[in-house]
Amino acid sequence: MRRRNLALVLGAVAGHSPLSRADVAGRVGLTRAAVSSLVDELIGRGALTEAAATASGRVGRPGRALAVSGEGPAGLGLEVGVTHLGACVVDLRGEPRVWRRVERSNADRPAGRVLAEVAELAAEAEADATALGLRVEGRVLAVPGVVPNGPGGLVERAPNLGWHAVRVADHWPDPDTVPEPENEANLGALAEFWSAEQPVETFVHVSAGTGIGAALVIGGRLFRGARGFAGELGHIPVHPDGPGCACGARGCLEQYAGETAVLRGAGLAHHGPGDAATLLAERAGAGHAPTLAALDRAGRALGLALTSAVDLIDPDGLVLGGAYAELAEWLLPSVRAELADRVTVRPWTPEALRPSALGRRGPLLGAALTTVRRILADPTLLPAG
Amino acid sequence: MRRRNLALVLGAVAGHSPLSRADVAGRVGLTRAAVSSLVDELIGRGALTEAAATASGRVGRPGRALAVSGEGPAGLGLEVGVTHLGACVVDLRGEPRVWRRVERSNADRPAGRVLAEVAELAAEAEADATALGLRVEGRVLAVPGVVPNGPGGLVERAPNLGWHAVRVADHWPDPDTVPEPENEANLGALAEFWSAEQPVETFVHVSAGTGIGAALVIGGRLFRGARGFAGELGHIPVHPDGPGCACGARGCLEQYAGETAVLRGAGLAHHGPGDAATLLAERAGAGHAPTLAALDRAGRALGLALTSAVDLIDPDGLVLGGAYAELAEWLLPSVRAELADRVTVRPWTPEALRPSALGRRGPLLGAALTTVRRILADPTLLPAG
Repeated sequence: MRRRNLALVLGAVAGHSPLSRADVAGRVGLTRAAVSSLVDELIGRGALTEAAATASGRVGRPGRALAVSGEGPAGLGLEVGVTHLGACVVDLRGEPRVWRRVERSNADRPAGRVLAEVAELAAEAEADATALGLRVEGRVLAVPGVVPNGPGGLVERAPNLGWHAVRVADHWPDPDTVPEPENEANLGALAEFWSAEQPVETFVHVSAGTGIGAALVIGGRLFRGARGFAGELGHIPVHPDGPGCACGARGCLEQYAGETAVLRGAGLAHHGPGDAATLLAERAGAGHAPTLAALDRAGRALGLALTSAVDLIDPDGLVLGGAYAELAEWLLPSVRAELADRVTVRPWTPEALRPSALGRRGPLLGAALTTVRRILADPTLLPAG
Repeated sequence: MRRRNLALVLGAVAGHSPLSRADVAGRVGLTRAAVSSLVDELIGRGALTEAAATASGRVGRPGRALAVSGEGPAGLGLEVGVTHLGACVVDLRGEPRVWRRVERSNADRPAGRVLAEVAELAAEAEADATALGLRVEGRVLAVPGVVPNGPGGLVERAPNLGWHAVRVADHWPDPDTVPEPENEANLGALAEFWSAEQPVETFVHVSAGTGIGAALVIGGRLFRGARGFAGELGHIPVHPDGPGCACGARGCLEQYAGETAVLRGAGLAHHGPGDAATLLAERAGAGHAPTLAALDRAGRALGLALTSAVDLIDPDGLVLGGAYAELAEWLLPSVRAELADRVTVRPWTPEALRPSALGRRGPLLGAALTTVRRILADPTLLPAG
């Protein structure tokens, strides 16, 4: 009960600060004395700060302004991408305070070596955070692969990294700082949900780049499937007799809309170093016809796969995230056209599909925010002051 | 709290009867006195009966055997199919006690006339139930159409009936007995879940016949989608450039696996009166080559659409229900083969797809059981004795 009330008070301040203790009591419907005791505990745990004095000012009435702390508790997000590593620290207000991203080709390198480098980046980010007065309370690692349900800390399969059954703890130098892995599409979707001004409760978040994944947020909660495999959009059959796919099937979405397929279609298969989505955006922006055609074809295929998603799940909306958010200008028209042609049985508007505001920053931000959201839901996770 | 405890006691008896009051107390972890008071109330509300006396016998120890009542509270299920009407009454034990089904061609007849006939059938079923000492506590109507979320009692669209925006109450003769409409695929899935010996928590239930729908049970609960349209399997594009569909798109599943398409493929388009699934089963059983080929083609298409469902939702299992459960012998091999070819990224076994045990009886049974399940969850819905 006290745990719930602590979360209630912290949530009120997070959503409406600055508030005085009296304001909070008015909002949450608890007595002033009860709120004061809860506020004291939240200050002790480092979750709230209280301004020294405000005679009147912004708070609107005499009282000392409470705010969610910008120091102290923080969440660390880490990311292994196919072509980069990342680390991010957010404070309890959800503000990113440390942001590091290094280009690194991770495909088919030993998982142990990649994870050792992530651990180094993590240590640097934690040091930066400490210098800012922040204390990391939880660590989550975004991976482009399947993370089964349950506590194991296992990455079952990350085909574009060449990982198979990688247990993060087995490769992490410090047992005290082992991060919990989670699928990057799931984290991107959660970041989108947590960051939205007016969150949609049920949506499908496409995370496209080297691979194509999706995540399902249903009624405001991530839906991971019976075993953690939900949202495997990349292998939906869009043209059943189409080209063979690495997965063993034919005509999967990735054969039309995956990065490799689009680069090949655009005549850019051997483009050398550099980011594929950036290159495609440059070429498309310059009116390069083969690139425009390849993106149109990719959009049509995405539209077909998303038709299945809309038919089955009946979401409020679809979000195009990941690196492909940067290609939205060229992808959206054909995805929307395909959906308009095929989603006819239910009401559907083109605007129900929109590009992500976070784009490829989503997964890393989602990884860092996971810890913050857990603390907001249960402030007793923080050590007592 | 008392409501929860009433449900706890009723659930214990429902799951493990016969039990004595002492047995129940042992099982639910409440005091004998508390259980006795709850049992008295449940007897008063007509939910439980207590045997006059049992010295020892089946109960295992001296005590009077409690059982869920086979008289009194009951649920009425009704069904409008494309070619039939149905009514069913189940008692609180979930036993069907009245079962009526009449063949009736309902396609493109005025909704008012069809509903008036359902109301007549309902009244007859209720009279039969009364004669058996049963009292109908709730009424649910299975329809082959879309029922939006929310209380309106509206059938938004039932294409195979030709219904559009039909509000059941507007056509029902007696305002006291208006049934609540629900999609037949949803009710079939729930009946499957409620009747299973070892229920799977997350599954996709295909309801194929004149149309093809599906229902999603996620974590033991029906998932209706953001607006009630989830599970629209019939219009998943399986061959994007395939034949035009009544929905306006091309190559939808129904164009390959819907009853009309299969009958046409089997050369039986003009088969005259009689049930299509029964006819197809007869022909297939007799080795009629065009029928076998049409069923194989339907199974392949179903397998393609279900690949999308497995990729997106990651269910524990798939159930082939509705009239097509009777065609399982000929459909299952090709559906399973297609799934085996295409579901490669996650573990998958052919046996994860199985035919429904209830088949086309599912929706009507689910409609009747809905009321019973509500009462089991909240016995205070029953009038106090």
